[in-house]
Amino acid sequence: MAVTAVKSENLEHAVTLINKAATNGAQLIILPECFNSPYDTTCFPKYAESIPGPTSDILAQTANDNNVYIIGGSIPEIDNGEVYNTCPVFSPSGKLLTKHRKMHLVDINVPGKIRFREADSLSPGCDFTTFDTPYCKVGIGVCYDLRFPELAHIYGEMGCKFLVYPGAFNMTTGPSHMEPLLRARAVDNEVYVALVSGARNETASYVAWGHSTVVSPWGDVLATTEHLETIVYCDIDPDFVDKVRTHLPILSQKRTDMYSTVVKRK
Amino acid sequence: MAVTAVKSENLEHAVTLINKAATNGAQLIILPECFNSPYDTTCFPKYAESIPGPTSDILAQTANDNNVYIIGGSIPEIDNGEVYNTCPVFSPSGKLLTKHRKMHLVDINVPGKIRFREADSLSPGCDFTTFDTPYCKVGIGVCYDLRFPELAHIYGEMGCKFLVYPGAFNMTTGPSHMEPLLRARAVDNEVYVALVSGARNETASYVAWGHSTVVSPWGDVLATTEHLETIVYCDIDPDFVDKVRTHLPILSQKRTDMYSTVVKRK
Repeated sequence: MAVTAVKSENLEHAVTLINKAATNGAQLIILPECFNSPYDTTCFPKYAESIPGPTSDILAQTANDNNVYIIGGSIPEIDNGEVYNTCPVFSPSGKLLTKHRKMHLVDINVPGKIRFREADSLSPGCDFTTFDTPYCKVGIGVCYDLRFPELAHIYGEMGCKFLVYPGAFNMTTGPSHMEPLLRARAVDNEVYVALVSGARNETASYVAWGHSTVVSPWGDVLATTEHLETIVYCDIDPDFVDKVRTHLPILSQKRTDMYSTVVKRK
Repeated sequence: MAVTAVKSENLEHAVTLINKAATNGAQLIILPECFNSPYDTTCFPKYAESIPGPTSDILAQTANDNNVYIIGGSIPEIDNGEVYNTCPVFSPSGKLLTKHRKMHLVDINVPGKIRFREADSLSPGCDFTTFDTPYCKVGIGVCYDLRFPELAHIYGEMGCKFLVYPGAFNMTTGPSHMEPLLRARAVDNEVYVALVSGARNETASYVAWGHSTVVSPWGDVLATTEHLETIVYCDIDPDFVDKVRTHLPILSQKRTDMYSTVVKRK
């Protein structure tokens, strides 16, 4: 999805794209990170709203109208004076099922290429976020959360077979890191993984890599695209997760006598 | 390195290749997994020897002759009646610095493609293995150990800037998994990672993928090859590790308030 600086335009456009995807048979629809605001630390406080709030009301209605799950990319959320980068999730009846506040905030400074520090205006989330569907359990991260293998591992342990990351890699990290990270998270946890990015806008302060991609539990790229706006369709088969786990039983082969990943919920 | 069924030939050939690499300026030389024996569960007990023992004596002498570090791929090792898949490491003065016994044993069964179960004849190691060089600390895994992100993470935490995996992916897992796993381990831990494979032998019971590869802490493939015998040369710059960690400080951004990787040494 191509995102502009006009929130109302972004919302209208998101609804149009969701309606189109649903008409074409999509049952679970994922928007990109920061789809109602430019991805810019100075914009986050200005565009922020509460969840539930005006943007999430529109997504709830659109989910209900189309009888589809919507993973609402992310929007700047304000709560108690703190701004978060938050992904709201809606059921086919339009219920707000859960929301994921980005847990790891981007901090990158590659001289001459890119500097971006979300903590300049955002606070981090402190919750793991999953939800159930009739197909399988789904785990949610937002973009930079993908860089932390522990999160994907914990979601796998919680029973997720599909991990979804609305995201926006940039022109420096995208070409080097995005695909290998998606493929390794999928192979290491034997789950489907999707990253959904906004389209590239060369005139924006932060230029997105694009390339929304879905990877199978075997690590194969099932569906992907270039950097322009499009709808990427993909079939997810939860039974294939079980098949891969039988063929290559790495999850039960972890040396939990020598190491383990410990969850400390806040 | 192309490996045959004749141990003495393999040893002579390994020495020839090490001498050649050292003559060309290599300071740390890595052999592939199972370089003195076919990679076959029925061969492991027959070819197994102790460490120190005849094969490790030859590698120690060759390290000393050339004044180079040698990471001796792996050999079937016998100790107290148990057989291990073990990587011995030698200093430039020919001292056996340490040895790594493969900690995670291969268990794969993809119907119609490949079945291999190391536990049919091997026992797993129970130690993390690192050693110091004047360049940086190095962590060792053997092949399937690469599939477990916890091991790479723990080596990073222990101060390693270079992770070395003698390995032998196969024709089913190699093309799908080897490169993305190497690149993700490098990017996630901001370390150099190398996997060194034997050459492909189409007549062997286990056909290796080959493609020995070195990846930078930024995830770039620095050096690689196809499936035939060759020496892959690569410069490792420990200072570049620090540079990447400054540009993208993910290691200090882990949410250790929400999760952590715990080491339980046996």
